[in-house]
Amino acid sequence: MPKPGTIQLTDFPYPKVPANAALVRMEMSGICGTDKHMFKGETTHPGGHETTFPIIPGHENVGILEELGPESRLEVEDRKLQVGDRVVPICDVTCGQCYICRSSYGFTTSCLRDVGYGTTLSCENPPHLFGGWAEYLYILPEALLAKVPDGVPPEAAVMTEVLTVPFCGFQKATSPYPLGKEGFGPGDTVVVLGAGPLGICHGIMAKMTGAEEIIIVGAPESRLELAKKVCADHTVNINKVTDPNERLREIMALTENRGADLVAECAGVPEAVTQGLDMLRIGGTLIVAGNYIDMGSTPVNPQKQILSKNARIIGVSGQTASSYAGSLRLIKKFSRTIPIETLVTQKFSIEEAERALLTAISMENMEVVIAPR
Amino acid sequence: MPKPGTIQLTDFPYPKVPANAALVRMEMSGICGTDKHMFKGETTHPGGHETTFPIIPGHENVGILEELGPESRLEVEDRKLQVGDRVVPICDVTCGQCYICRSSYGFTTSCLRDVGYGTTLSCENPPHLFGGWAEYLYILPEALLAKVPDGVPPEAAVMTEVLTVPFCGFQKATSPYPLGKEGFGPGDTVVVLGAGPLGICHGIMAKMTGAEEIIIVGAPESRLELAKKVCADHTVNINKVTDPNERLREIMALTENRGADLVAECAGVPEAVTQGLDMLRIGGTLIVAGNYIDMGSTPVNPQKQILSKNARIIGVSGQTASSYAGSLRLIKKFSRTIPIETLVTQKFSIEEAERALLTAISMENMEVVIAPR
Amino acid sequence: MPKPGTIQLTDFPYPKVPANAALVRMEMSGICGTDKHMFKGETTHPGGHETTFPIIPGHENVGILEELGPESRLEVEDRKLQVGDRVVPICDVTCGQCYICRSSYGFTTSCLRDVGYGTTLSCENPPHLFGGWAEYLYILPEALLAKVPDGVPPEAAVMTEVLTVPFCGFQKATSPYPLGKEGFGPGDTVVVLGAGPLGICHGIMAKMTGAEEIIIVGAPESRLELAKKVCADHTVNINKVTDPNERLREIMALTENRGADLVAECAGVPEAVTQGLDMLRIGGTLIVAGNYIDMGSTPVNPQKQILSKNARIIGVSGQTASSYAGSLRLIKKFSRTIPIETLVTQKFSIEEAERALLTAISMENMEVVIAPR
Amino acid sequence: MPKPGTIQLTDFPYPKVPANAALVRMEMSGICGTDKHMFKGETTHPGGHETTFPIIPGHENVGILEELGPESRLEVEDRKLQVGDRVVPICDVTCGQCYICRSSYGFTTSCLRDVGYGTTLSCENPPHLFGGWAEYLYILPEALLAKVPDGVPPEAAVMTEVLTVPFCGFQKATSPYPLGKEGFGPGDTVVVLGAGPLGICHGIMAKMTGAEEIIIVGAPESRLELAKKVCADHTVNINKVTDPNERLREIMALTENRGADLVAECAGVPEAVTQGLDMLRIGGTLIVAGNYIDMGSTPVNPQKQILSKNARIIGVSGQTASSYAGSLRLIKKFSRTIPIETLVTQKFSIEEAERALLTAISMENMEVVIAPR
Repeated sequence: MPKPGTIQLTDFPYPKVPANAALVRMEMSGICGTDKHMFKGETTHPGGHETTFPIIPGHENVGILEELGPESRLEVEDRKLQVGDRVVPICDVTCGQCYICRSSYGFTTSCLRDVGYGTTLSCENPPHLFGGWAEYLYILPEALLAKVPDGVPPEAAVMTEVLTVPFCGFQKATSPYPLGKEGFGPGDTVVVLGAGPLGICHGIMAKMTGAEEIIIVGAPESRLELAKKVCADHTVNINKVTDPNERLREIMALTENRGADLVAECAGVPEAVTQGLDMLRIGGTLIVAGNYIDMGSTPVNPQKQILSKNARIIGVSGQTASSYAGSLRLIKKFSRTIPIETLVTQKFSIEEAERALLTAISMENMEVVIAPR
Repeated sequence: MPKPGTIQLTDFPYPKVPANAALVRMEMSGICGTDKHMFKGETTHPGGHETTFPIIPGHENVGILEELGPESRLEVEDRKLQVGDRVVPICDVTCGQCYICRSSYGFTTSCLRDVGYGTTLSCENPPHLFGGWAEYLYILPEALLAKVPDGVPPEAAVMTEVLTVPFCGFQKATSPYPLGKEGFGPGDTVVVLGAGPLGICHGIMAKMTGAEEIIIVGAPESRLELAKKVCADHTVNINKVTDPNERLREIMALTENRGADLVAECAGVPEAVTQGLDMLRIGGTLIVAGNYIDMGSTPVNPQKQILSKNARIIGVSGQTASSYAGSLRLIKKFSRTIPIETLVTQKFSIEEAERALLTAISMENMEVVIAPR
Repeated sequence: MPKPGTIQLTDFPYPKVPANAALVRMEMSGICGTDKHMFKGETTHPGGHETTFPIIPGHENVGILEELGPESRLEVEDRKLQVGDRVVPICDVTCGQCYICRSSYGFTTSCLRDVGYGTTLSCENPPHLFGGWAEYLYILPEALLAKVPDGVPPEAAVMTEVLTVPFCGFQKATSPYPLGKEGFGPGDTVVVLGAGPLGICHGIMAKMTGAEEIIIVGAPESRLELAKKVCADHTVNINKVTDPNERLREIMALTENRGADLVAECAGVPEAVTQGLDMLRIGGTLIVAGNYIDMGSTPVNPQKQILSKNARIIGVSGQTASSYAGSLRLIKKFSRTIPIETLVTQKFSIEEAERALLTAISMENMEVVIAPR
Repeated sequence: MPKPGTIQLTDFPYPKVPANAALVRMEMSGICGTDKHMFKGETTHPGGHETTFPIIPGHENVGILEELGPESRLEVEDRKLQVGDRVVPICDVTCGQCYICRSSYGFTTSCLRDVGYGTTLSCENPPHLFGGWAEYLYILPEALLAKVPDGVPPEAAVMTEVLTVPFCGFQKATSPYPLGKEGFGPGDTVVVLGAGPLGICHGIMAKMTGAEEIIIVGAPESRLELAKKVCADHTVNINKVTDPNERLREIMALTENRGADLVAECAGVPEAVTQGLDMLRIGGTLIVAGNYIDMGSTPVNPQKQILSKNARIIGVSGQTASSYAGSLRLIKKFSRTIPIETLVTQKFSIEEAERALLTAISMENMEVVIAPR
């Protein structure tokens, strides 16, 4: 992607791998909402970082270790790696030296010098291979990899990066004193606004962590049908229930007129924050995870929507590096009851990347992936 | 206050005190922002409860136990009470039976059937004495009292209810994982928006709990001068620095260009929420405590102001009952270094109540109180 | 149970139900470790409260509302009740007035004047029916009931009280900053010491909240087999692996030599605390839930077992009232994947109560219940 | 210190400082309990790491930047450093690559490959200068420095490392749900067991964060007198009140018979843990911070001392790197009300190191320091 709106095929030389780096042969790379935004020219990432065109897109990656420098210490939990291992690369590379990195904060996108595979690491400079829509991905010495547990296929592992967002978000939302009526806990009701891969993964995390009622609000019907198969107890189709007040009434009816314990904004549009706040119960929590690209403002009433409800609003910008390992453990553990691999509904070759992007934008599919062969 | 805009003097009979109730002879009752709002006709409290005119205003109270039913168990920490004790009445009365009360949530205003002295307990019904701008206050069997520690004068104790708001708010803001860069902790920088009694009490709580830099943003200069005497390290006069961007630049300059760890909205106007979010650092927390009466909406940018900063926004609606006891302990402990009684800058008799209200509205004073004699 | 070691059948008159009380026709009442202890003469409950013989044992109860006073407000989440509803009575009755009750602490057994159905509420005084091994249970005006969701059978509902202990314990263990390596979170490894109903319910809660690896350490084999069916990924039979060091090596082998994220002591013997501490990883958490009756001391090394690991040890004394409602929601939600009703392995009539107790003591069964008909 | 029991003066060459390292000219280095233990032959640090004799002792350090490699990025909050700046070196050096470092855990001593200045970094290998009882301290490229704020003298800055322990410990103790009766919060009562520098610093942190009543239990009287000047409201002299039950009664009398909200073990002996648990109230928290060197076991009753009280026990092994910056901010902020520099009661030259150690062991002094000139 040399610039917004353009996708073209380019050949780069096979890289030389130094002693502390590695090379991954790509199996699969997902198409994220961010990729669609960049294609449309919406290019401002968290922290105000701009996309560094030209880029090779692709940050939801999985592949096989093809080369491993003898001094590599790249596994995120310090496990031994060897050529042939299936790995999920951590998509952000942090400096390790800014005051955010040196506190124990953990969120990689909050690093003041954060660069991201497929977004803010340009492919202009050698060794070029800094995005997943390619045959190979070059792993910098400062980057990290998560080893995929045995038995987890690439269709499931490619969802890891998406699942890390609710993995971290739910942990931030859980506390601080769940024995009372504040914060998320098992047995709670969760409303997810948005039925794309990020939304469904929030529903999945809710199911994994013991939510009672999981309600997904979005469209089209095909996505909601898939949501029902993996996590949703109820769905609300916004193409059918077009009046936000009517949707609110449905949520209240499903929650004994209290409102939801947790609402997760995964829609990527500012007004979802305003609607989500109305759906909260007293002491409820709103996660803001979908507004990853700057799309403007939305009106919020501090008294009615925040103070009067003793509400909490929590921004979740990406994830921590260690959450990749945790998410992979959950994917394996729940492989029988939550078939996350079924979210991958369509595969395209690298040559078909533009068509893949347009298919993803059409929203009829769930997770669309690029698979080299 | 029979209706908005009107104050009149009324005589009620001296009440009979049943075995499980009590009667307090008032020493002092503060004028809160809520009292000013109700006088102006802004009458919607948290939970959507409307003011139940006619009322006797006054919910920031302190007085002396005049009568005590033999079966009274009214002290909030179950201490023994006797006639002559100085007490601060808890201003909200909860049902103890709704699902909020039966969880261990604690915030009294979140009770679904909450009624409040001086606001939603009408003086129409006997025994009438349900507000602090009076000679006596009647304590219902379901109500609670906090015993004032020895040596705390009424001018300090009358600030208790105001101080309970930051007492609870700072606890909600402290966690969940302060070892990293999220939540408030000792050594942090706190910005308070609003220089009235609620704002100053947030500054005081910041000082009590180990904040390093306390910056109060408000007006007029007389209030800021007083703030400097009790808690503020820096002040920003919004009548002089009228451009919000200029105020933001001052905050950034005072925080090594990072933004504040904690911002407390104590201004009572929606736009303070928008400005407060801009002042936060990555991982910072915004307390919304001042928008107690519904004054409309304000634009919020979910990406720039919430997600990108991994920010938390926390609504604080009033307080818990037990926070009265904790706040009184702090008032006593810090009596030498933080003379909270100096916030009481003017006293009026009950007969002068209307003039007292207009004085409070003029904002030249800090805490204005009604003292029966 | 007029005294330790003796069980006898007694007739009490059918009670009169006042306007604010209720009467439950018993369906089922479980035999808890506490019942076995009291029978053996081990009678000191948390807070130092002694068993108030004579008692009707039985605090893990479920039944049908037979009578309901017209002014009853007994449902723990304030739901409407009617005769014929299936209910689980909250087994502790709190005063609502001590300083613990008036804070928002929530743990019912921590009330300074706590009395418990089946343990510290003697059946000597009318209306006598204060334990579940009976045809009817009298519900005091100060007591509470949790309405059982539709479709939850009595065999599942009778497990509610046991499940509330890990419900509360896991919430206490979860935070404070799970994004780092402290506290329990989804994807973690949980070791449970003890394979009785309390132990299995901790394993179940671990499964419900997203644990990856659940290891149950106990005996006999029949209990471990059942554990595998409902929650355990691995089991360690202490009758076969009798050396504690060997058990520790097994745990280390199952955790990449790190130790468990969470260990739950559900064995009821002091030495389990010492062994559990050895099994923790750095930053791990030990729940102490099984030592409900005082059985003496155990050696602990503060440096090796606590400080050096940055460990947390958390006492869990019973539960909150609201956790009954949350646990019932989880029982219903997971009814297909976690058949909790299979824990009830044997039923006895009231007349067979002594034989039921001896059966429970033999440990060959899992949950043994008394069912009136 | 070539081996336990021996101190000798040695000359090492002035080191060459590479581009990413630094050299500090020592101003002052404290004598910690750990130094005394190592001298006595008690040499097992957290994680089971053994002291790597020969060593230059000294890990509570402050000095002036003498040389700074041009590529150094050593400041813990990434501030700009220059020659002549006063700095406090972070005393542990972490690998940054083990699974503990790669999570966002933060505690430096928990790193699996942790080495410590003055303890587990031998002076055998060049450039030798790895301890503070010397003229110069060599700062490794992987190490960190905290810049001392203007106006903080070396006598105050030398206390930084000690203060970081309660800085981190109090944060761990604060939550998770302080609005109820669990965890430490402002207005609480704190008991400190141990009256050495670590104990006094816990008392100081309690005062900085708003504790109401601070009780220090220890000896001799001279230390308790100093404690009263900087933080203690009450002291208990264990040389006078020799019966632990009598001490417990004093604590109960000072806490309305409830027990302390927080007890901090800073005595370094196992039995302090047992006594501390008895002093806790229901829902109280015990910090274990003093048992840094392995001194054996102590009996604990799980029912009476942990479960029945819903107690929490929290191990605190050292500190995080970022807590040095936070502690320095607090030292500066409270410089007028808490003169921490008065804890330094005696200074010795490097030549007098052995006499200094023996003086520290005698316990008559508070903080004894080595100052090169």
